[in-house]
Amino acid sequence: MESKKIRIGNAVTEYHFNASLSKLQLVADRKYSVIITDENLYDSYKKKLKGWNTIVVKPGEEFKVQQTADTIVDTLAEMEADRKTTLIGFGGGVITDLTGYVGATYMRGIRTGFIPTSLLAMVDASIGGKNGIDVGLYKNLVGTIRQPAFLFFDVSLLQSLPESEWQNGFAEIIKHSCIKDAPMFRELAEHDLAYYRGRKNAIAALVRRNALLKTKVVQRDETEQGERKLLNFGHTLGHALENQFELSHGQAVSIGMTYAAHLSSSLLGFRQTEKVVSLISSYGLPTYASFDRTKVFDVLKHDKKRERDTIHYILLDRIGKGVVHTLPLDQVKTIIEQL
Amino acid sequence: MESKKIRIGNAVTEYHFNASLSKLQLVADRKYSVIITDENLYDSYKKKLKGWNTIVVKPGEEFKVQQTADTIVDTLAEMEADRKTTLIGFGGGVITDLTGYVGATYMRGIRTGFIPTSLLAMVDASIGGKNGIDVGLYKNLVGTIRQPAFLFFDVSLLQSLPESEWQNGFAEIIKHSCIKDAPMFRELAEHDLAYYRGRKNAIAALVRRNALLKTKVVQRDETEQGERKLLNFGHTLGHALENQFELSHGQAVSIGMTYAAHLSSSLLGFRQTEKVVSLISSYGLPTYASFDRTKVFDVLKHDKKRERDTIHYILLDRIGKGVVHTLPLDQVKTIIEQL
Ligand SMILES: NC(=O)c1ccc[n+]([C@@H]2O[C@H](COP(=O)([O-])OP(=O)(O)OC[C@H]3O[C@@H](n4cnc5c(N)ncnc54)[C@H](O)[C@@H]3O)[C@@H](O)[C@H]2O)c1
Ligand SMILES: NC(=O)c1ccc[n+]([C@@H]2O[C@H](COP(=O)([O-])OP(=O)(O)OC[C@H]3O[C@@H](n4cnc5c(N)ncnc54)[C@H](O)[C@@H]3O)[C@@H](O)[C@H]2O)c1
Ligand SMILES: [Zn+2]
Ligand SMILES: [Zn+2]
Repeated sequence: MESKKIRIGNAVTEYHFNASLSKLQLVADRKYSVIITDENLYDSYKKKLKGWNTIVVKPGEEFKVQQTADTIVDTLAEMEADRKTTLIGFGGGVITDLTGYVGATYMRGIRTGFIPTSLLAMVDASIGGKNGIDVGLYKNLVGTIRQPAFLFFDVSLLQSLPESEWQNGFAEIIKHSCIKDAPMFRELAEHDLAYYRGRKNAIAALVRRNALLKTKVVQRDETEQGERKLLNFGHTLGHALENQFELSHGQAVSIGMTYAAHLSSSLLGFRQTEKVVSLISSYGLPTYASFDRTKVFDVLKHDKKRERDTIHYILLDRIGKGVVHTLPLDQVKTIIEQL
Repeated sequence: MESKKIRIGNAVTEYHFNASLSKLQLVADRKYSVIITDENLYDSYKKKLKGWNTIVVKPGEEFKVQQTADTIVDTLAEMEADRKTTLIGFGGGVITDLTGYVGATYMRGIRTGFIPTSLLAMVDASIGGKNGIDVGLYKNLVGTIRQPAFLFFDVSLLQSLPESEWQNGFAEIIKHSCIKDAPMFRELAEHDLAYYRGRKNAIAALVRRNALLKTKVVQRDETEQGERKLLNFGHTLGHALENQFELSHGQAVSIGMTYAAHLSSSLLGFRQTEKVVSLISSYGLPTYASFDRTKVFDVLKHDKKRERDTIHYILLDRIGKGVVHTLPLDQVKTIIEQL
């Protein structure tokens, strides 16, 4: 286990890489901890969770809502959880978001750590302290910003992760490479999903690289005034698509990145659209999609990143260099309708 | 209108004393603001609120719950409120708590200001940035800490406030005098409720003095590590009583202060219990009460201020000087049972 403390704003988060679930008691006291997890994970890791207090919720994005948070709060109150309690989110991004949100508001904030179990949660969702819930069609409309006390990375947990969820994680990894890390983009282009899936050391190194990449961005800009906006590459359109269609987060973001690459060529003369599209496909993710554009723009209007009639849109100058552009919503609409 | 900026932690709050509701547009843009209020206030001030976007909720503590917050969030989403929106809580402490909590979590925090309309909200609830909701029997179990952007004090709004709510406010004012301000204690003892109710200048000065007193305490200790705990004088037992019986907050706190004064004589040799009790009574507030002690201690066990089996209890060294004591829960129970 490699442990390091990383400061973000006024908070310090302990990162434990190459950790193992069986060593969890090294970072949290069994007696004063409550693990929040979902049914899928509980089924797979029941034995390893023995002796820990657990709250098990139903899996899936449709349960990342206030009602689930209410249930967790009620159970914590019954368990007599108090300010000395550590809350531990053990699961994918749905669980880390729910846990982070409840952990930031229960008694106005108790110690909260994450054990991300999906690839997406390891490289993205568990990092950065933004946690929230969905309200109707609006993803993450309500939430908090608060850094976790610790992050516990055990890539052996990925063994039980379904193939489609590996793809979801790679969408964010590809995103990171596009906006910040051209060498990683080349590494990814040389391999494929099966390569990483079969090699514990390779995936552990990739998780670490991506977790630290996102951390650095957040460190420089915790409240999303500038650089952190880059992490929304593919997400502006992606979020609007995700709620309208039966798409996973990674699929929606992949389509979003594809369209953002095209917008980048129209507006900035970006010339590597083909490379981006081909990397996305090679990891089994979708690129182009036909969708009801009026509906999607309706949802886009509500996007948190909207400021009146303009929208912050993330484009690429080149692979490895994302840039924030403020665009009139109408212009985005016109260009995308013409694609 | 006397306006001053006061820094608490990293945040700056604008205090507007001697303000008038008709001048609200000086501090918030009508077009981009949403006022949250309750039916009682809406009925009394409908005309003055004309032209402002409003969300009106049912009045009373039983609506300071997640479900009301959910309704507010849904309405904000429908109204297309976004990061440029200012949320304004216009009401008593229930409304300022609900508004502060929603304002801190909607889109992870939008600009939020308060116009306290009850005496209690003016001298206490609107100040300090702790805002939350009740969960079952547990008051403020879920919430946030975030300073409001502005506070707007218009004491003429108190004209419509029922007598019993004036008493509630005076419970907190008496509390402030006990823990921090002996000269104010003497001033209060020379007058009575009718005196302040009939004199706009006197109540405006008293509101200002108390608002600034609480602000100073919060400034020194935003996260309640030490001094801020003093504000819980009368509240530890008070909260437990409030939820068990048909008592108003001020009534419960008054009984709490009475018992805390007695605990202070038992434990610290405090000799002014009679004076405290007589001041409380002279403002029409209750002092002694018979209650089901087992039930009350059951609720006390869940109090946020509990740390395992001890409890932070606020006692008085003398009038004007509160002190924090860490006491075993059992000891508190024994002493109170013997009273
Ligand atoms: N807070 C942030 O900064 C941030 C960033 C990105 C995404 N997110 C959020 O994360 C969520 C998506 O995360 P996700 O893709 O991990 O979703 P998820 O939590 O729903 O996990 C996906 C599925 O995989 C299952 N699963 C997870 N780990 C497993 C394992 N090791 N073995 C077997 N099954 C496993 C889950 O039960 C679920 O069915 C979205 O709600 C998104 O908004 C948040
Ligand atoms: N956040 C904090 O730091 C803090 C501190 C103290 C109390 N509180 C909270 O404040 C709440 C109590 O505040 P409250 O006593 O103001 O309660 P409240 O908001 O319920 O107001 C009391 C009653 O007076 C009515 N009212 C308020 N102003 C009026 C006016 N000008 N004219 C006519 N009617 C009016 C309200 O409609 C309500 O019926 C509790 O929930 C308590 O937990 C919070
Ligand atoms: Zn994402
Ligand atoms: Zn009070």
